[in-house]
Amino acid sequence: MLGNRLRLSVFGESHGEGIGLVAENLPSGIEIDTCAIVAEMARRAPGKSPLSTPRREADEPRFISGVYKGHTTGTPLCAIIENTNTRSADYERTESFARPGHADFTGFKRYSGFNDLRGGGHFSGRLTAPIVLIGAILRPFLSAKGIEIGAHIVRIGKAEDRRLESGEITPELLSRLRAQELPVLTCGIDEKMRAEVGSAKKDGDSVGGIIETAATGLPAGLGDPMFDGVESLVSRAFFAVPAVKGVAFGAGFQAAEMRGSECNDALYTENGRVCSKTNNNGGILGGITVGTPLTVSAAIKPTPSIAIKQKTVTIDGNENGEIEVRGRHDPCIVPRAVPVLESALIFALADIIMSSYE
Amino acid sequence: MLGNRLRLSVFGESHGEGIGLVAENLPSGIEIDTCAIVAEMARRAPGKSPLSTPRREADEPRFISGVYKGHTTGTPLCAIIENTNTRSADYERTESFARPGHADFTGFKRYSGFNDLRGGGHFSGRLTAPIVLIGAILRPFLSAKGIEIGAHIVRIGKAEDRRLESGEITPELLSRLRAQELPVLTCGIDEKMRAEVGSAKKDGDSVGGIIETAATGLPAGLGDPMFDGVESLVSRAFFAVPAVKGVAFGAGFQAAEMRGSECNDALYTENGRVCSKTNNNGGILGGITVGTPLTVSAAIKPTPSIAIKQKTVTIDGNENGEIEVRGRHDPCIVPRAVPVLESALIFALADIIMSSYE
Amino acid sequence: MLGNRLRLSVFGESHGEGIGLVAENLPSGIEIDTCAIVAEMARRAPGKSPLSTPRREADEPRFISGVYKGHTTGTPLCAIIENTNTRSADYERTESFARPGHADFTGFKRYSGFNDLRGGGHFSGRLTAPIVLIGAILRPFLSAKGIEIGAHIVRIGKAEDRRLESGEITPELLSRLRAQELPVLTCGIDEKMRAEVGSAKKDGDSVGGIIETAATGLPAGLGDPMFDGVESLVSRAFFAVPAVKGVAFGAGFQAAEMRGSECNDALYTENGRVCSKTNNNGGILGGITVGTPLTVSAAIKPTPSIAIKQKTVTIDGNENGEIEVRGRHDPCIVPRAVPVLESALIFALADIIMSSYE
Amino acid sequence: MLGNRLRLSVFGESHGEGIGLVAENLPSGIEIDTCAIVAEMARRAPGKSPLSTPRREADEPRFISGVYKGHTTGTPLCAIIENTNTRSADYERTESFARPGHADFTGFKRYSGFNDLRGGGHFSGRLTAPIVLIGAILRPFLSAKGIEIGAHIVRIGKAEDRRLESGEITPELLSRLRAQELPVLTCGIDEKMRAEVGSAKKDGDSVGGIIETAATGLPAGLGDPMFDGVESLVSRAFFAVPAVKGVAFGAGFQAAEMRGSECNDALYTENGRVCSKTNNNGGILGGITVGTPLTVSAAIKPTPSIAIKQKTVTIDGNENGEIEVRGRHDPCIVPRAVPVLESALIFALADIIMSSYE
Repeated sequence: MLGNRLRLSVFGESHGEGIGLVAENLPSGIEIDTCAIVAEMARRAPGKSPLSTPRREADEPRFISGVYKGHTTGTPLCAIIENTNTRSADYERTESFARPGHADFTGFKRYSGFNDLRGGGHFSGRLTAPIVLIGAILRPFLSAKGIEIGAHIVRIGKAEDRRLESGEITPELLSRLRAQELPVLTCGIDEKMRAEVGSAKKDGDSVGGIIETAATGLPAGLGDPMFDGVESLVSRAFFAVPAVKGVAFGAGFQAAEMRGSECNDALYTENGRVCSKTNNNGGILGGITVGTPLTVSAAIKPTPSIAIKQKTVTIDGNENGEIEVRGRHDPCIVPRAVPVLESALIFALADIIMSSYE
Repeated sequence: MLGNRLRLSVFGESHGEGIGLVAENLPSGIEIDTCAIVAEMARRAPGKSPLSTPRREADEPRFISGVYKGHTTGTPLCAIIENTNTRSADYERTESFARPGHADFTGFKRYSGFNDLRGGGHFSGRLTAPIVLIGAILRPFLSAKGIEIGAHIVRIGKAEDRRLESGEITPELLSRLRAQELPVLTCGIDEKMRAEVGSAKKDGDSVGGIIETAATGLPAGLGDPMFDGVESLVSRAFFAVPAVKGVAFGAGFQAAEMRGSECNDALYTENGRVCSKTNNNGGILGGITVGTPLTVSAAIKPTPSIAIKQKTVTIDGNENGEIEVRGRHDPCIVPRAVPVLESALIFALADIIMSSYE
Repeated sequence: MLGNRLRLSVFGESHGEGIGLVAENLPSGIEIDTCAIVAEMARRAPGKSPLSTPRREADEPRFISGVYKGHTTGTPLCAIIENTNTRSADYERTESFARPGHADFTGFKRYSGFNDLRGGGHFSGRLTAPIVLIGAILRPFLSAKGIEIGAHIVRIGKAEDRRLESGEITPELLSRLRAQELPVLTCGIDEKMRAEVGSAKKDGDSVGGIIETAATGLPAGLGDPMFDGVESLVSRAFFAVPAVKGVAFGAGFQAAEMRGSECNDALYTENGRVCSKTNNNGGILGGITVGTPLTVSAAIKPTPSIAIKQKTVTIDGNENGEIEVRGRHDPCIVPRAVPVLESALIFALADIIMSSYE
Repeated sequence: MLGNRLRLSVFGESHGEGIGLVAENLPSGIEIDTCAIVAEMARRAPGKSPLSTPRREADEPRFISGVYKGHTTGTPLCAIIENTNTRSADYERTESFARPGHADFTGFKRYSGFNDLRGGGHFSGRLTAPIVLIGAILRPFLSAKGIEIGAHIVRIGKAEDRRLESGEITPELLSRLRAQELPVLTCGIDEKMRAEVGSAKKDGDSVGGIIETAATGLPAGLGDPMFDGVESLVSRAFFAVPAVKGVAFGAGFQAAEMRGSECNDALYTENGRVCSKTNNNGGILGGITVGTPLTVSAAIKPTPSIAIKQKTVTIDGNENGEIEVRGRHDPCIVPRAVPVLESALIFALADIIMSSYE
């Protein structure tokens, strides 16, 4: 369960009946724009480009509750995405060995072997579809407050792009990025990224990357100090996304090499708005929003499913062996993770806003 | 408030009556070793070395409740650290302008100007003392289960050390690191780090760094998937520590440059224990512990308080101006952050253990 | 959302697609006995006897997630009960006026008119079906620890039965009560209760009642003091059941008329077990279980839907008017509330047990 | 910990260093009126009248944090009430036997004997002082919204008063009741109540009673359905108060004897406000406020400490014995519970308001 006031439960297994979500305490009266939602889900869906797995799924949610006459009711919203087009046979062959980099062994230990291992079960990347869904539902809620969210790919493998500068983060740029299949800032980097993916694929291997997500239009003063700080709540949401191994705000780990005189973002006021030329703190100080753009980077590890033979243990950890992971797998999930992280940020911010009475 | 089953509230302002904590649902019967606690608090306390601020405080906690006959009772534990030796005059001079990199402006906005600004108030780094305290209280609880926590400094400014390798993470190493004033792995790096701090201090500036924290002895299968994953809960705790701008597990952002065949930690079983030669996933898969060492890195930004004159806005953000931050300040808080992050990890793990019935 | 460690979300609207639940952190490996679950659901289902509404629904849950090979996996369990056999026309006629005693007006105010009013929407008594379901799933988990739950009807209208005495609360008695259509302690009282219902029905009116629920086999020492006391958590769950207007433990409101010498339950030990002849405290002292039987009574108000014409306001509260509530309604929901309250107690106790590490 | 957005932790033991509270997410800028707070605390304090225990304590809170320049800062507020004037000897004599009706045995079991038993330790009625304190702090927050809270005693022993009628619940009446030492509606009943207490005292025995608490000025539409309904949250807070064994809204258990036509509160609108002549539902429907007065009754059991010799078990439950409870004890705590329940209601309502964004 994620959230303080807004509460999100995500359920389902990769090869079970379906996956979905329940969201409590949503604002009532948000218009459900089915086209926009389906379009957003399609950004994450597999099979849309040569970069990703050929598994194609409609990923169209069925609303069981909480939607009435085209709007959120405010009562608990349940949506289900049925599982179709699953080829369990691909996976069952490998069930006796733990796939390296996956949660097969840890899940077995956690659930004493009762969990559904097919396709990763509840640990499957497919469980990010409900996260995208709740983001798509809540995006208009933030937009109505002037808050827009977008993201771009900073790195895939060795191909690296620059980061966002404070001044350029506008709703227009974020919107433009959201329209790109591989959202990058520097022209031509996307081709290098494609080459990285292609090369890994040819080798039966995979690559990871870094995504920078941003929010603009936030008011100053959102969030609470310490444990409910914006960074604490956003990072909690981000690390729930499979394959995320690092989360950093603003300059993040680069800040460790800076001097204070360089890292401090000097504030100034202009036309009644507090601004900053730099954004090393990611728009958050003391856990609370400055009102300047929020930026957060996430490191995505390379897809653990690769065609190369690997050493491993049996699911129960008792014996050694080898595994060749079969089935359809993304050589790089970074592009598909973009809408997932945008949505995780949307949810976290919407929860923080809904929690801030006054 | 932090924690699911264990619950930690930290309160206080830098220049108020005092700071402290309340912890609910602690295990009963943990021995309170006052000497060990005071020693642990001293690791964080200012003024202990030429590297840090000369403000000296006893930082000895007074237990108001929850301790009886030298043990935790299990009922809510309240401990208070009185504020002494505060020189408010240092700070009051600067109260009308927001210190860059601090929460002066954001705190003012969050609390409509009612919060105590002196010395940063509730946003002061001093609020990390209660985190160290709860870590010191809970450390024996984890030790009794064979779990040991330690940390080392990976970087200060430009001086960089290597990271921990999976095989070397033993209780003995962690214990040895905990005894060092500047815990490093490579002989001589500590001198380079000292030079970085000295150089910044001479310039009236400051430096940041990176700390790697580790846990050994964890059983496999701890934690929950997704939002209550170990990474989600640990990162939430870590980002509550002022100046932390990035959190990464295992290889973290380096994982983004790896291929899957390199990043996957091949598991093998030996003497009834599942191990791994590498530790790129930080000992966590799918949010759940593997049983191999857990490693987590945190980026600490350079101390925002510097002697150099800076541009800024008034506390309320309405006017532009300049500030010279006076008072006693650390040119580098990285060494003092080491026990804070160890304690944040201890608390998060203890909560996860206390939440895991079965 | 209910629960600390176990977490239950209930969703759905009376005349929407369906209703259901998501439960997080269930123990893994509980056997799903579909027959037992359906039988338990049938105890609550409408239309089973002349006493209740003729609306008949299968109320058979479809498990979307969290169940695999006939056992709980431990990952989030989602179950859905589809809505069928709804005759919306019955209700739509009355939508413009708030039904007295129902949440039509309060729901409209809470959700700014966006909620689904048909048949009470999310406020419908039908939303208790998922509560019965989770109780049916968790009952074997408690049974395996020797804990059994049952209930009897203390009152319907003017027909009153006696309460349980401490010594007679055995698994056998509770099991016997669970087999009765109208579970009562005193032979013949059930006929008087039926007469009360029949008389109210003939008048187009309704009657309420009191249910006493009990648990046996609890260990001593479960629960936390104050806000997470057993009484606090059980009452929170009970008051979530529509129509419950009072909750009392042990002698409850009768305790107010007793003297201390009468109300104190003298404890004695026998065969290694602490017992008590009386049970005025309901088996709970200081929020914590004594190990003697737990008893809790709930007052159920008469069904607010009656055939008699009533004065009321429009849904938005702006105008006065009159309403004749049409549709199929129970003259008395007390018998159907029995399994609901048993299940609410099962869930609360299972959560308390799952929260109690050590 | 109590509360969703507002969070209250209460700590301390009867004979330890002190007791107190931490409150998170309080509104900033509430004026701290020390006189009003001390006066409110005095309403609960022992020793103020011949009806109660002669133990006299200042009960003046010391604010450690969260208060600055006479107002709440909004950051965590910690207040401590030091323990003074404790005569532990009174209690130590009885420590080897569990006092009937107290949490001595259950606390021992819960905490494996590590808890502080003196004077009931954390289970002491003294722990209600912090509840009164937080109520006194938050009362002006509700008053500023036009919401007033008061209470009266419905019963002490056999002396019974009538309940509040919907129409008479005004701020003026509630204020008048708050000024009475024994707040009753019917002239002369207070003398009968005093006689009940006196008679019990003479016998070395004790009496209980019923308190009805009310809120006026609530808007319609506050609260959430089901598990976060107003009744669920208020009852959770009320049952945290030691000695409360029953909680009922509106007509409560009397509703069980009514017919629907009698119990339904017909709503009507007058001068733009929705009203009701009756208040059998306590101003709450579907867990959400109607906007009419909220009424909630609580059953208080007779003080378990009596001078009469009683049978009991040893603290660990292993042996039988007898106990004569010495020390200073109230023959009736009902009058002192009045401000405690008012405060519990204030806190629950303030939390519900702070949680209701929109």
